[in-house]
Amino acid sequence: MKDYVRKINYYETDKMGVTHHSNYIRLMEEARVDFLEQIGCGYEKLETEGIISPVIGVECQYKKPTTFGDCVRICVQVIEYKRVRLSFSYTMYNQNDELVFTGKSFHCFLNSNGKPTSLAKSFPQYDEIIKNYLVEE
Amino acid sequence: MKDYVRKINYYETDKMGVTHHSNYIRLMEEARVDFLEQIGCGYEKLETEGIISPVIGVECQYKKPTTFGDCVRICVQVIEYKRVRLSFSYTMYNQNDELVFTGKSFHCFLNSNGKPTSLAKSFPQYDEIIKNYLVEE
Amino acid sequence: MKDYVRKINYYETDKMGVTHHSNYIRLMEEARVDFLEQIGCGYEKLETEGIISPVIGVECQYKKPTTFGDCVRICVQVIEYKRVRLSFSYTMYNQNDELVFTGKSFHCFLNSNGKPTSLAKSFPQYDEIIKNYLVEE
Amino acid sequence: MKDYVRKINYYETDKMGVTHHSNYIRLMEEARVDFLEQIGCGYEKLETEGIISPVIGVECQYKKPTTFGDCVRICVQVIEYKRVRLSFSYTMYNQNDELVFTGKSFHCFLNSNGKPTSLAKSFPQYDEIIKNYLVEE
Repeated sequence: MKDYVRKINYYETDKMGVTHHSNYIRLMEEARVDFLEQIGCGYEKLETEGIISPVIGVECQYKKPTTFGDCVRICVQVIEYKRVRLSFSYTMYNQNDELVFTGKSFHCFLNSNGKPTSLAKSFPQYDEIIKNYLVEE
Repeated sequence: MKDYVRKINYYETDKMGVTHHSNYIRLMEEARVDFLEQIGCGYEKLETEGIISPVIGVECQYKKPTTFGDCVRICVQVIEYKRVRLSFSYTMYNQNDELVFTGKSFHCFLNSNGKPTSLAKSFPQYDEIIKNYLVEE
Repeated sequence: MKDYVRKINYYETDKMGVTHHSNYIRLMEEARVDFLEQIGCGYEKLETEGIISPVIGVECQYKKPTTFGDCVRICVQVIEYKRVRLSFSYTMYNQNDELVFTGKSFHCFLNSNGKPTSLAKSFPQYDEIIKNYLVEE
Repeated sequence: MKDYVRKINYYETDKMGVTHHSNYIRLMEEARVDFLEQIGCGYEKLETEGIISPVIGVECQYKKPTTFGDCVRICVQVIEYKRVRLSFSYTMYNQNDELVFTGKSFHCFLNSNGKPTSLAKSFPQYDEIIKNYLVEE
């Protein structure tokens, strides 16, 4: 499993001179998409099956600012997986390996009728894989 | 016709201390949506009919920076309207009535099959209205 | 105290057809800026004094989707205020008064040297006001 | 010179199901920053010298939609370089090498007093390099 790595963009900074805090939510999404692809559970295939996985909550702790030119590395882990609920943790470091951010995101699964669905039932292939990546917090 | 007015948000600034240039494209969209609603040609009704109106081009001239706390006023005009093509101009002022930005956006109309369609044919009510708002440049 | 009200923009939606979850963090900021202005504690005056108030954490619960054309109303409250720490809660409703989102943001105060500072010491006028708006959770 | 390559993010799409047109301005910036770094004219060094290079205009033609999961490749060229003015062109392709976007951006140089400055005078090292990359349109 490779951590997700990318540079901070100029347009992601604000007049305080640092990455605007809202953009970390977007970095979390990028890292999660990358993680799911790496383990063989890409979003697109899920959406093709008519299953969507909306974010039902996030938690963020901003530890240290980053800015344009910084290169961040994000480690993603599955910290909860129960029938209709899936949660991830995110640990973000700068290019000097200093911790800059920690966060969590909480998700559910909805079928094409917008009803909660368990992945085990609606997409068993993904269910098997995700189980294997669940870590003890 | 009322100009579109709103404050610049903190998250729209960048480390240069000014509104990031990409956000003017978003302000243009907000002002266009507001203009179309004012003249009785709201986007939502159009999309309900299965017609979408993608942006096929934009042109922007940044005249003077704006920043957090500034309040901008945007004047929208229809500068071209031909069968499958619709173009708008945008003139933006700050709270001191100084010109800060001018821009144009170019649009077409697509039906639910993704084919170009003339508004006159597919949505004659809007066609009539928009014609009346066309100004000579 | 007036709640903060505004429409959801087209560019704030995503391919799921709803407001992207990252944009709620931006709505929180807009509502907080508006709240602070209303009580006479505007950001700009603070920044003029060399004091910045970075976000050190956020928590979000997404209750119900919103989308383009929806009009949201956000109620902001001061839920914690201790020397160098200030926290807000946010309750967001759609045009039908349905709860769509709840959130919290956590802030500290830094002086021009980047050191934590208490508002009581560095900006007593604001300290007095904010105390009065602290609500019991 | 390597083209700038990256995937489209989920949060960059809109309810039409495609990359929102405002995000291409951001992709242009990312590609420009990358280009300038590759040729040894990084933004950060410029800003350290107190020189900023604001965007004074952009032009965009949207040729074909892109969406989440698409991987775009952007070719950047210097198309104009005169004393206080610098212009770039951008040609963007999708993963099937189809042209999806063309654009231009126009820049000037300002010194730490906010006055226009020629790069030749204020930063001759960069001036030499950029001259070499100027292409005939």
